[in-house]
Amino acid sequence: MDKVLENILIEQGKKARKAALELATVSSNLKNTALLAMAQSLEALSGAIVAENAKDLALGKQQGLTASLLERLTLNEARVKDMADGLREIAALPDPVGEVLNMWKRPNGLDIGRIRTPLGVVGIIYESRPNVTADAAALCLKSGNAILLRGGEEAMYSNRIIADILATSAVKNGIPEGAIQLIDSPDRDAVIFMLKMNSYLDVVIPRGGKGLKQVVADNATVPYIMTGMGNCHVYVDEYADLDKALPIIINAKTQRPSVCNAIESLLVHQAVAPGFLPTIVTALQKAGVEVRGCEKTLRYMPGVIAAAPEDWDEEYQDLIIAVKVVEDLDESIRHINTHGSGHSEAIISENYSSVRRFMSAVDAAAVYANASTRFTDGNVFGFGAEMGISTQKLHARGPMGLNELTTIKYIIYGDGQIR
Amino acid sequence: MDKVLENILIEQGKKARKAALELATVSSNLKNTALLAMAQSLEALSGAIVAENAKDLALGKQQGLTASLLERLTLNEARVKDMADGLREIAALPDPVGEVLNMWKRPNGLDIGRIRTPLGVVGIIYESRPNVTADAAALCLKSGNAILLRGGEEAMYSNRIIADILATSAVKNGIPEGAIQLIDSPDRDAVIFMLKMNSYLDVVIPRGGKGLKQVVADNATVPYIMTGMGNCHVYVDEYADLDKALPIIINAKTQRPSVCNAIESLLVHQAVAPGFLPTIVTALQKAGVEVRGCEKTLRYMPGVIAAAPEDWDEEYQDLIIAVKVVEDLDESIRHINTHGSGHSEAIISENYSSVRRFMSAVDAAAVYANASTRFTDGNVFGFGAEMGISTQKLHARGPMGLNELTTIKYIIYGDGQIR
Repeated sequence: MDKVLENILIEQGKKARKAALELATVSSNLKNTALLAMAQSLEALSGAIVAENAKDLALGKQQGLTASLLERLTLNEARVKDMADGLREIAALPDPVGEVLNMWKRPNGLDIGRIRTPLGVVGIIYESRPNVTADAAALCLKSGNAILLRGGEEAMYSNRIIADILATSAVKNGIPEGAIQLIDSPDRDAVIFMLKMNSYLDVVIPRGGKGLKQVVADNATVPYIMTGMGNCHVYVDEYADLDKALPIIINAKTQRPSVCNAIESLLVHQAVAPGFLPTIVTALQKAGVEVRGCEKTLRYMPGVIAAAPEDWDEEYQDLIIAVKVVEDLDESIRHINTHGSGHSEAIISENYSSVRRFMSAVDAAAVYANASTRFTDGNVFGFGAEMGISTQKLHARGPMGLNELTTIKYIIYGDGQIR
Repeated sequence: MDKVLENILIEQGKKARKAALELATVSSNLKNTALLAMAQSLEALSGAIVAENAKDLALGKQQGLTASLLERLTLNEARVKDMADGLREIAALPDPVGEVLNMWKRPNGLDIGRIRTPLGVVGIIYESRPNVTADAAALCLKSGNAILLRGGEEAMYSNRIIADILATSAVKNGIPEGAIQLIDSPDRDAVIFMLKMNSYLDVVIPRGGKGLKQVVADNATVPYIMTGMGNCHVYVDEYADLDKALPIIINAKTQRPSVCNAIESLLVHQAVAPGFLPTIVTALQKAGVEVRGCEKTLRYMPGVIAAAPEDWDEEYQDLIIAVKVVEDLDESIRHINTHGSGHSEAIISENYSSVRRFMSAVDAAAVYANASTRFTDGNVFGFGAEMGISTQKLHARGPMGLNELTTIKYIIYGDGQIR
């Protein structure tokens, strides 16, 4: 890769590492003051942000981006205000850094405690939506981490001005220089190099489509947290309240089909299949959903498209659903643990033992009884904003808020103890 | 690599994955009964274990292993009993699986909780000491994880019989088959392949020397937790009680110099250097320690060997220490954060603000005030046994006990909520 770019990235890494060590001991008051000032600056420079965003939109139209991508990319006064309000919300959250999780005395008189500390330097690689620039920078600042932001090429002008406003305002308010930095290169090699900056990055968080995630999995030597892989299911138990099942399924599939916590498959217990399948399939089709059924489903609903074996592993992110009739609860658990991506899984049942067994045996970040999978979200869970939804098991699982951007250290107070 | 070996490993991985899903919901009572029976079996078959161990020792002597390696490798009746007692201690610890860390109600009526669950399948790659086979298997079983054990070639016979006794006894007591498996190949390729078994392993933990750790860092695509890299320091502050400093430094350097929580460098504030250096350097040398000093140290102690720049980054694991005179507290913090490996760091000081600043600004798994770094250990911290000491920040930092072998999942109880 380009030596000049490589050197720029290393310099940015060094600056971030230095900033992180200082930022780790900055007071909550100072961080909150900076966040509020940053919100203020975004609003004050709203016109300039919208003007830069217009350049991205013009380029995007030229390059033939889809209407929905252009919509996600668009900023206006109202959206800039939302971004600023997001920063204010993060300022209002409790500071995770310095929280002593527990502390105990050992027989030899040592006091040992576990205290939350920042991770250090966080890298984030994201696509499209420029508000992620502000959200991610604010979450990292609040949790005492320096951040290297690498946004999508399609939002280059928007990300540049937003990152610049935030960094300038932060430094002006006493945050160490280098705490918020944009990796300002459309070069794909910059992403690859970033994924190997082990001396400068403590973790990389990818937020984007399958292509990006594959690049990360194939190239990263820096520890990373995979986010938002969602092959989610609703299982309708033999003892389901079908009046609850119907709206939950419609909501989980259709309310926003492109997101990771939408469902891709529906599992129906054979005892309720004959009665329930016609109702739910018709309702789904009426909502514009293409239904693909297993062999048994086709027996009850001969008009439905036959599902292929690949359908059970597919993340459609679209108005398509695969429907399978299962013999019993255990088959549903086996199916989910085999084909699911470990994101969000739901059982609909009024039976105590069925719910208890499903909640315990399903291996996923979020397991629901009688509610839509669409609730897996940092905001909905009550964490404020989120950095993404982890679908891996190490370090963080599920929505990542401020706590998930920290690690711990042990603090030990003695009076001369030796071993 | 050898296709036959590859297929064996994949089969072992599949069996482990299947066992892990079952083991996740096994009751504490059943796990504890199995652990006690496993302890019983080890003791009952103690003679056979010692006989197999003799084969390893004979081979080791032939291959010219050092006396200290042979000593670590040796098993006798007493050491087998210690191993069995280790299993009994783990049985007596609380089960981490199923602990609800917190639970809260959201405005829409959803109850959301965080519950500890097993990681799934843990791989451990270790060297020499065969008791690790029993410790690791027991910690994983108790925390509901299946384990793939890959011990060192030099302990092949010992590990084989220990793993066999443990697995047989576990299955006989209702633990799913495949929960405890040894990767029984001396082939180095087995390690490389294991590090890439992403579909079957949730985490790999390497325990061994620098060579092993480099192999892991270079080859692993499975998430791993790096353990036991220890470049630790004691800093003697301007306000140190020197009567506490001396025994702490001697203990931290000489009590067991080969381990990761022993110190490699000593930092001394310039205000106390003239008076303290002669005392401590003489005491260290009397204890058989080779002292390497910075320029300023040499001024006070002209007889001392001059330290090279590399000395500040060296993990000697031997009776050698590098000594540096620092200008102030901040230089000691900067030095540690630059050269330390993030393991264990200590300040000796009676000054409130010095201690407060050091504890907060030093970036390491364990930070001590007025105590020896040698205490960083799962047992000493009160966790029972440990899987190793993590020197990374993601997931686990410091001694890894049962809790560190778990992840969490969110459990959400609703009454038909949709978004």
